[in-house]
Amino acid sequence: MQDLTLHEYQWSGNCYKIRLTASLLGLTFKDRLEYDVLKGETRTPEYLSRVNANGRIPVLQIGQDTFLPESGAACHYLADGTDLIPTDRLEKAQMLQWMFFEQYSFEPYAGTLRFWLVKKGVENLSEEQKAQIPERRKQGEAALAIMDDHLSTRKFFVAEKVTLADVALYAYTHVSHQGGFDLSKCPHVEAWCKRISELPGYIPIDR
Amino acid sequence: MQDLTLHEYQWSGNCYKIRLTASLLGLTFKDRLEYDVLKGETRTPEYLSRVNANGRIPVLQIGQDTFLPESGAACHYLADGTDLIPTDRLEKAQMLQWMFFEQYSFEPYAGTLRFWLVKKGVENLSEEQKAQIPERRKQGEAALAIMDDHLSTRKFFVAEKVTLADVALYAYTHVSHQGGFDLSKCPHVEAWCKRISELPGYIPIDR
Repeated sequence: MQDLTLHEYQWSGNCYKIRLTASLLGLTFKDRLEYDVLKGETRTPEYLSRVNANGRIPVLQIGQDTFLPESGAACHYLADGTDLIPTDRLEKAQMLQWMFFEQYSFEPYAGTLRFWLVKKGVENLSEEQKAQIPERRKQGEAALAIMDDHLSTRKFFVAEKVTLADVALYAYTHVSHQGGFDLSKCPHVEAWCKRISELPGYIPIDR
Repeated sequence: MQDLTLHEYQWSGNCYKIRLTASLLGLTFKDRLEYDVLKGETRTPEYLSRVNANGRIPVLQIGQDTFLPESGAACHYLADGTDLIPTDRLEKAQMLQWMFFEQYSFEPYAGTLRFWLVKKGVENLSEEQKAQIPERRKQGEAALAIMDDHLSTRKFFVAEKVTLADVALYAYTHVSHQGGFDLSKCPHVEAWCKRISELPGYIPIDR
């Protein structure tokens, strides 16, 4: 594989997904470039024209000239052909099901509330953002309840083994208390978090 | 392949993605079951326990007992092993990149505004929803600008051939005027829409 560079904001769960995938696979980054999203460092003309026109992190840089945004796509690139992606047609689709679920039905709630409460601070939110907190809390709790029910009869999300679905969902779940969520209401999710943290190659989010 | 049943709300772009994928591949559904989301038909106890705990459509049912939510996952199941999914590691990841982009950075804006304006009606929106319209419009226009720039040098989103990335992005793009977006500002997107509509096996959204 060509040299890998990670353009990231370390604190972000989406960036952690790529680092965790790489670590589980024994891959290393040649370089990690940190951007302060609070200072708009991913919205500069240079970033938008060279790294990601969508102005977001993470972006996985492959070699000199290939830039791959979207954490799920970057994880898939790293894990292609490994045990983290099932080969069975249905299991592969189910892995993607949970990765899309995470981006659509969980991260906008658990991830955004964590960012708002920890990094921006409630006092700095706009009135429109403040008004959205109860609905985002409700949606995030609903997603956690679905995950807890699913995990009540399974060790991992798909195929009884670790896949990218687990990596994707773990990133914001295990720090969801920072956004005001109470994981003790979701014992199966808590037990699954512990299983993930015990995997060979596991690294915490602050590494 | 086992019998396929589509649980859907025909008007939804996410449901159309699955029908379009199937049609491009020459696949047919044994059955299509319509749910009126405005009447809460995807939130009934039976639907939540049997079809999708997340209370959303579409869901692709495979055989009698397998239910696959998330349009991107269902399209991937149908297209696995066909030309709609690249085999190259990078191209496959780039296809997923645009599918995640669609669900995170486009559909919540273009899809939601279309639903609010056409199906709910502005007069029936909550004050919180009304307050979100300008920001959702801005985000949707930003996504279209990124797509237009990308397509300025390409015929399709990835690998110069049709992939699931095109199917996923086409669904809400080609009807985005219903949500108040002006595609004439995005000539490359308009030309790409025409190319998609001329593909062998193409079907319109109302079929």
